[in-house]
Amino acid sequence: MTDIAGILERELGSAAVIGPGHERLDDYGRDESPLPEFHPPACAVLVESTEQAAAVLRICKERAVPVSPRGAGSGMCGGALPVPGGIVLSTERMTKIKEIDAGDLVAVVEPGVVTGVLQEAVEAQHMFYPPDPASLAFCSIGGNAATNAGGPRAFKYGVTREYILGLEVALMGGEVLRCGRRTAKGVTGYDLVAGFVGTEGTFGVITELVVKLLPNPPAAATVLAVFADMAGAGAAISALLREGLRPRVLEIADKSSIDHVRPKSRYRFPANAGAVVLLEVDGEPDAMALMMEKIGVRCDDLGALDVLAAHEPADRRALWEARRLISPSLKEAYRVKVNEDICVPRGRIVEMIARVQQVSLETGIDTAVFGHAGDGNLHVNLLSHDDPDDPAVRTKMWAAAERVFAHTIALGGTLSGEHGIGTTKRDYMRMEQSEQVLEWQRRWKLMWDPSNLMNPGKKIPARTKACSE
Amino acid sequence: MTDIAGILERELGSAAVIGPGHERLDDYGRDESPLPEFHPPACAVLVESTEQAAAVLRICKERAVPVSPRGAGSGMCGGALPVPGGIVLSTERMTKIKEIDAGDLVAVVEPGVVTGVLQEAVEAQHMFYPPDPASLAFCSIGGNAATNAGGPRAFKYGVTREYILGLEVALMGGEVLRCGRRTAKGVTGYDLVAGFVGTEGTFGVITELVVKLLPNPPAAATVLAVFADMAGAGAAISALLREGLRPRVLEIADKSSIDHVRPKSRYRFPANAGAVVLLEVDGEPDAMALMMEKIGVRCDDLGALDVLAAHEPADRRALWEARRLISPSLKEAYRVKVNEDICVPRGRIVEMIARVQQVSLETGIDTAVFGHAGDGNLHVNLLSHDDPDDPAVRTKMWAAAERVFAHTIALGGTLSGEHGIGTTKRDYMRMEQSEQVLEWQRRWKLMWDPSNLMNPGKKIPARTKACSE
Repeated sequence: MTDIAGILERELGSAAVIGPGHERLDDYGRDESPLPEFHPPACAVLVESTEQAAAVLRICKERAVPVSPRGAGSGMCGGALPVPGGIVLSTERMTKIKEIDAGDLVAVVEPGVVTGVLQEAVEAQHMFYPPDPASLAFCSIGGNAATNAGGPRAFKYGVTREYILGLEVALMGGEVLRCGRRTAKGVTGYDLVAGFVGTEGTFGVITELVVKLLPNPPAAATVLAVFADMAGAGAAISALLREGLRPRVLEIADKSSIDHVRPKSRYRFPANAGAVVLLEVDGEPDAMALMMEKIGVRCDDLGALDVLAAHEPADRRALWEARRLISPSLKEAYRVKVNEDICVPRGRIVEMIARVQQVSLETGIDTAVFGHAGDGNLHVNLLSHDDPDDPAVRTKMWAAAERVFAHTIALGGTLSGEHGIGTTKRDYMRMEQSEQVLEWQRRWKLMWDPSNLMNPGKKIPARTKACSE
Repeated sequence: MTDIAGILERELGSAAVIGPGHERLDDYGRDESPLPEFHPPACAVLVESTEQAAAVLRICKERAVPVSPRGAGSGMCGGALPVPGGIVLSTERMTKIKEIDAGDLVAVVEPGVVTGVLQEAVEAQHMFYPPDPASLAFCSIGGNAATNAGGPRAFKYGVTREYILGLEVALMGGEVLRCGRRTAKGVTGYDLVAGFVGTEGTFGVITELVVKLLPNPPAAATVLAVFADMAGAGAAISALLREGLRPRVLEIADKSSIDHVRPKSRYRFPANAGAVVLLEVDGEPDAMALMMEKIGVRCDDLGALDVLAAHEPADRRALWEARRLISPSLKEAYRVKVNEDICVPRGRIVEMIARVQQVSLETGIDTAVFGHAGDGNLHVNLLSHDDPDDPAVRTKMWAAAERVFAHTIALGGTLSGEHGIGTTKRDYMRMEQSEQVLEWQRRWKLMWDPSNLMNPGKKIPARTKACSE
């Protein structure tokens, strides 16, 4: 076996390499994915520049060592995990914000910049970077681009892809490619950038990004509406959208989610709360009162048990508290929490949530569902008090997940709205996509990485025997 | 030479084929591009179904006949023009709106549906399809997806790519591929759909589209502000954006444009008008008066010569009149009108317009500039009273265009914001993109079309000899 750690240490210096025996090596074999199968990388290399990233990819190509790029390690599908015999290339030290240009409404950043740090930096200059994955306090912009991350504000503002104008990427073998533009629009040539976003490190390593910014909306308002059941909440959402409302956030959570946050939340949910809707609008300060009134009255008309509205930042944060508490509360209450971010056509949300309850009844597994109702993107949490290291538990949880996927696809949905595929969902992709569609994706992957050393085995399932012959 | 017209007639019936001698054949050798080099196709085939499109592509592959797909023929860069010995595959008869689903906020349409027809159909059901190319009364949604068309509302709502969720495409050889989804978000596998949009028919023929819709904003308001010069207009735009305003439309036009519409416009421009800005906001009806007031006051503060605002549809149309009259007025006034839709970083608009005036002085060619200021996407019109069929005139016009391109690129811009590349801009691409970037695009093209029969010679320049060796 090649001593890849030693070779990379000689090339980049020992400070850049976390090799065998290092106390932190195992950390690079883990991310935030549920029920991971752990194995450590041969080493992790923490590059500080494009040149270093390219050098790593040149050396690894020459020695046929697989490379898995890693941002902040906050992925939930195993996309950044090493493959057997492979190394991890981390961009966590590439944290420079190179430029924020208020005139052009762009920022130029290195991939390791934490998303929330970028947001604060641009907001300090009265601009706005909308994508807001729940992990924004620790995830990185490079990882966001690699997974095409979403978040609550995607309903109005779109996902990460809409904000990536240009990319510099390092390809397996060490070629460095700059593509895209600095302009808001552009159709000169094929869109290499849009093709690269969301490929989970399987095409190459993102080493620099040109990011689109927006004017910062001067005001926002938040409304929390509680309903007796999901059908009532769904009807209210449909009614508001039909009237032309375009909130920037339109979140929903089910009874199980409410029951878990109830003891911790400062807001006292009504005893018969069966669903909660969180809306947020933004725009001119003078318009906020009107908007809150309109939304509140409509929710009342449609049978809401309670409606709260706020436009002051502190009050708004209080309304968000219940939503933000869901995931930590579930993590605290259960030893196993498998969060599948399926996405269904918007009109099928209520039906999908009913089907998850049915899966819960059939399998005896607790569930809690919350997520981005405006986009039909639901976080279906499968929960267990059992031992996560027990293979029988893993089998049972994934069997339940498979039932959730089957209902998702039956309703015209897709396996992942924003988390990605990585390894954990990879082998379920055939439930949704034909072998023909998969085969075109494999060709695209091989165009960028003919050696198949760039994060191999992620994002698309391997050919079945029948197909490879 | 193969009698491709005869073969296709036998396969699809004579009603589907416009062959040699047909009075309309020449029409399929033309689009809306300036100074075209005319040659008619071997035939035009007007398909009515995916199966027919696939049959044409199977037959043409077998006989090595190049195929150029065509939507409504409203393209401005020659993307839909036939290549020597090739045929045109028109989707103009595929005009079915198969589905409009208010619950899921999607429409499923054939590619020949006229964009404006789709917009009216969805608006009748209180939904909204934002992309609004100026040609929306006659361009087709398939052509919009093939060129990733923009329009004034792209500033707030994004370009066509953001609204194409799923595609059915027919590939050279007759393979039919369905890819994408019906959900608002989705990261399952690589994004074949985003990769296909904007490829100007060089990857395949779009035969069906799943289109994302939005709730219809219940109200809109329009403001027209006239300034003494472009610097004043630019300062006002920057100030409004800095304050967080996010208009759906933010158009600009220069003195030359104003002077051409002045005699036709019902609005009487001030004598010293040097620049005009057209803004449009949308949202809740109650907020419109506030928004108009805010914008108007700000423009006054910043030295506007005149400000008009309207929220009633008829009054809004009156304000749009001057903007809409620019292009027809220029066409009427000049025998040659070359419209280059360059795009610069937003902060460089005023400088770019100054450089166009410099090109006009240097070359003696009249110019008029208008376009989408919010996106930095300017329509630079090069105008001449000379004979468009005179080769010397063509040479002179393209030499001026090349100067405009050079300034665009010097300011960090791109050759095309929304019209595309086709053939007319193809050979200028090397001014902007490296041979390395072009080469990756050629690989992508060959992945989809190894025979290079699918609209060959469009969108990317051929390899230079040094590269192909």
